[in-house]
Amino acid sequence: MLAHGMSPHSLSSRDGSPTWELLHEALEAGDADAVRVLMQEIPDGEVPRLFAHLSSAESHQTLAMLDPEVAGELMKTLPDAFAADVVEGLEPAEAAAIVTTLPSNTQADILSDFEPEYAEAVLAVMPPEDAADAERLTQYSDRTAGGVMITEYLSYSDQLTVGDVLADLRAHREDYQRHDVQYVYVTGDRAELKGVLRLRDLVLTSPNVPLRQIMVTGTDFLPVDADIDALHDFFSTRPYRGVPVVEADGRLVGVVRHADVAEAFGEREASDHLKALGIVGGEELRTMPVFTRAWRRLSWLSINIVLNLVAASVIAAYQETLTAVIVLAVFLPIISDMSGCSGNQAIAVSMRELSLGLIQPADVFRVWGKELSVGAINAVALGVLIGGAAFLWQGNLMLSVVVGLALMLNTLLSVSLGGIVPLALRGLKLDPALASGPILTTVTDMCGFFLVLSFATAVLPSLGN
Amino acid sequence: MLAHGMSPHSLSSRDGSPTWELLHEALEAGDADAVRVLMQEIPDGEVPRLFAHLSSAESHQTLAMLDPEVAGELMKTLPDAFAADVVEGLEPAEAAAIVTTLPSNTQADILSDFEPEYAEAVLAVMPPEDAADAERLTQYSDRTAGGVMITEYLSYSDQLTVGDVLADLRAHREDYQRHDVQYVYVTGDRAELKGVLRLRDLVLTSPNVPLRQIMVTGTDFLPVDADIDALHDFFSTRPYRGVPVVEADGRLVGVVRHADVAEAFGEREASDHLKALGIVGGEELRTMPVFTRAWRRLSWLSINIVLNLVAASVIAAYQETLTAVIVLAVFLPIISDMSGCSGNQAIAVSMRELSLGLIQPADVFRVWGKELSVGAINAVALGVLIGGAAFLWQGNLMLSVVVGLALMLNTLLSVSLGGIVPLALRGLKLDPALASGPILTTVTDMCGFFLVLSFATAVLPSLGN
Repeated sequence: MLAHGMSPHSLSSRDGSPTWELLHEALEAGDADAVRVLMQEIPDGEVPRLFAHLSSAESHQTLAMLDPEVAGELMKTLPDAFAADVVEGLEPAEAAAIVTTLPSNTQADILSDFEPEYAEAVLAVMPPEDAADAERLTQYSDRTAGGVMITEYLSYSDQLTVGDVLADLRAHREDYQRHDVQYVYVTGDRAELKGVLRLRDLVLTSPNVPLRQIMVTGTDFLPVDADIDALHDFFSTRPYRGVPVVEADGRLVGVVRHADVAEAFGEREASDHLKALGIVGGEELRTMPVFTRAWRRLSWLSINIVLNLVAASVIAAYQETLTAVIVLAVFLPIISDMSGCSGNQAIAVSMRELSLGLIQPADVFRVWGKELSVGAINAVALGVLIGGAAFLWQGNLMLSVVVGLALMLNTLLSVSLGGIVPLALRGLKLDPALASGPILTTVTDMCGFFLVLSFATAVLPSLGN
Repeated sequence: MLAHGMSPHSLSSRDGSPTWELLHEALEAGDADAVRVLMQEIPDGEVPRLFAHLSSAESHQTLAMLDPEVAGELMKTLPDAFAADVVEGLEPAEAAAIVTTLPSNTQADILSDFEPEYAEAVLAVMPPEDAADAERLTQYSDRTAGGVMITEYLSYSDQLTVGDVLADLRAHREDYQRHDVQYVYVTGDRAELKGVLRLRDLVLTSPNVPLRQIMVTGTDFLPVDADIDALHDFFSTRPYRGVPVVEADGRLVGVVRHADVAEAFGEREASDHLKALGIVGGEELRTMPVFTRAWRRLSWLSINIVLNLVAASVIAAYQETLTAVIVLAVFLPIISDMSGCSGNQAIAVSMRELSLGLIQPADVFRVWGKELSVGAINAVALGVLIGGAAFLWQGNLMLSVVVGLALMLNTLLSVSLGGIVPLALRGLKLDPALASGPILTTVTDMCGFFLVLSFATAVLPSLGN
């Protein structure tokens, strides 16, 4: 362990040039020693930004010059998807050497982010045992116990004695130290979990005692398909740092750590956020290829433009009213935008409460009631504001009643939809993060345009200037 | 430890009624035993939803009937702000008993979420040592090492021997077990951190050896004001579960745990998401009072409506053109909405990359370039789509060129702004989550309306039907 001082986020080196410029120079000069020193000296917090500044070729050159252990440490500071981007394209043997230094769950995440053929090539040159572990882990879906767990844990047959275990621990002291092991799991003939032991209990017990005599039985465990919400709930009330994971037949297959669960939970919220703002797939980094990025955004935008055209067709049906009272055209985009704002607030709160386990699809009426109470206050406030602005501008009371009343009613509609739609989509097993926004804006736009223009049509004589 | 099976998220009890209905009945009947049994049997994952269904009075009745330890376990399953809401209003002595069972960082979070007078009342009846710890922790800002750390750690003077420590550990065995202690910290005269010891090393050493002889020195530590990004970076490359935190003068004041850092990091992203969608303060739960919720939403909406009026004033300046070509009114909300969509995608990616440390304000030109390349593809695609739709509908080529070209140019503007504005706000030490959206939509609305209407004005003769 080394003394560690937090340095400010400057990404500039001794002589004032940013590290990537020094690195450019060292790479051009082919000066491997300089590259090694630069990568050794850079603070962890500045590694992601450094790689964001390097071209793919430069990243590969840099990684190839480093010890795989050092390269692995650097990759740990990057988000998994970005680490996969950076590593992909290296000689498979070099990539395998780096990937092997990472914890098994990170290995699996990075391998599934590779193009399939490249992942195969890397797996083929990884140590067979690591490759088998990593491949098995990639089978479990993301954000379940199987997808989050690590396979670095110690398990021993219940036929062994304390002495057997201590001998094994001593023989592999260095290997095990890297993983900060605290518990030892005891398994039966079919590798099924039978009990758990703390290291310190082993140390205090006489060597010829069988494990089965001192192990703690009836331990907490998690099924391999437990979802991220179940994992999050589990750790919220238990002081454990890690918990064993078992297959349906009772076989011990891994250990889930609290910190990994907390991280996966945060990742899901981040991914939902990106989806809600129109990034299909829930992830975009600007280091990804332009066409991938353009495609993920465009697939969302093109659906939205069609929905927008549908909504705007309501306006087309009222061209006569619009021509007669052209100032209404000023208010249409305002009604559309403000209803969207109110509805998105309700969506955001519903998504948050779903994620925290505070609500479920069955709570739709309670949520609706809660939205209507807040919505009523805000509907009146917004209606009065826009009605007042309309009156100040045009001096026509009926006009201000038309736009004020339309926004009031549409605000009530939009908070209702915003609160309810995420629950309904979740109930239908659809992804609320991706679909709630477009459904909301399309319906509230259509309805908002209809309210303004139909009210205006009804009182047309009093609106004419 | 108990065997633990994950139950499905049903929140229904043996006879099919949801737990809260059974609880209503038990509370009405004043049947404390039934309440205790119900709260014992409910799976952790269903506790948040249960409390979301209870009125404040019912929550207080329930908590008062439970053992403080049990009530504390229930509160641990709730988000801190919600736990504070649920507990607030209990008799201060009852609240203090529950709060005291929680880890010190949760105590501090909940106390700062109480109304100040209520927090004082609770602190006054907490055990003096706990109260002092909790009060000290509330001084540190959220999402720093000081705000995230716990004060439950073991530290001993470097004057002591191994035997002294083992005697203390034995004497307080029960207390310490609750906290899953693995390390012991060694401090000097002024409580300054001198070294660290693993429990298992203590057990294997002869009792009369002084701590200073076997402690590991030069340990990693974190300053009390390290921010959440620094904490996140720190743990991303180190296998530690916890790290000591020291004041500027070297005094040991707490321990930061990896899982708490991962959780705080996720919380910040969730809070930014709520802000970005218009929840001022970054948190709203529907269990909060209606006026608090309405106010947080309205303060954002009222700014937006003013900005919307400003943007729409551009339309007002072109009433003549609009009257001449009324179909333009159909396209104005579409241009506004689609530019908002494109820009929000860019904002979402910039916020994500800022949070991951991939970009900083100084990277503004690189980000702009990356946005322009994706933006160019999407601008052409969207321009052609809307131009095509306009042509199909009206059969007027010039009209389709006007709206297509306007949307193209405005898409380029909106992705540029969306990419850059969060960086600029961060550079100015303003909160990009809250302000990016309104700035984007106001500017792109104004510019979009101006482009459509000024192009239309320029070619007005060819647009007339």
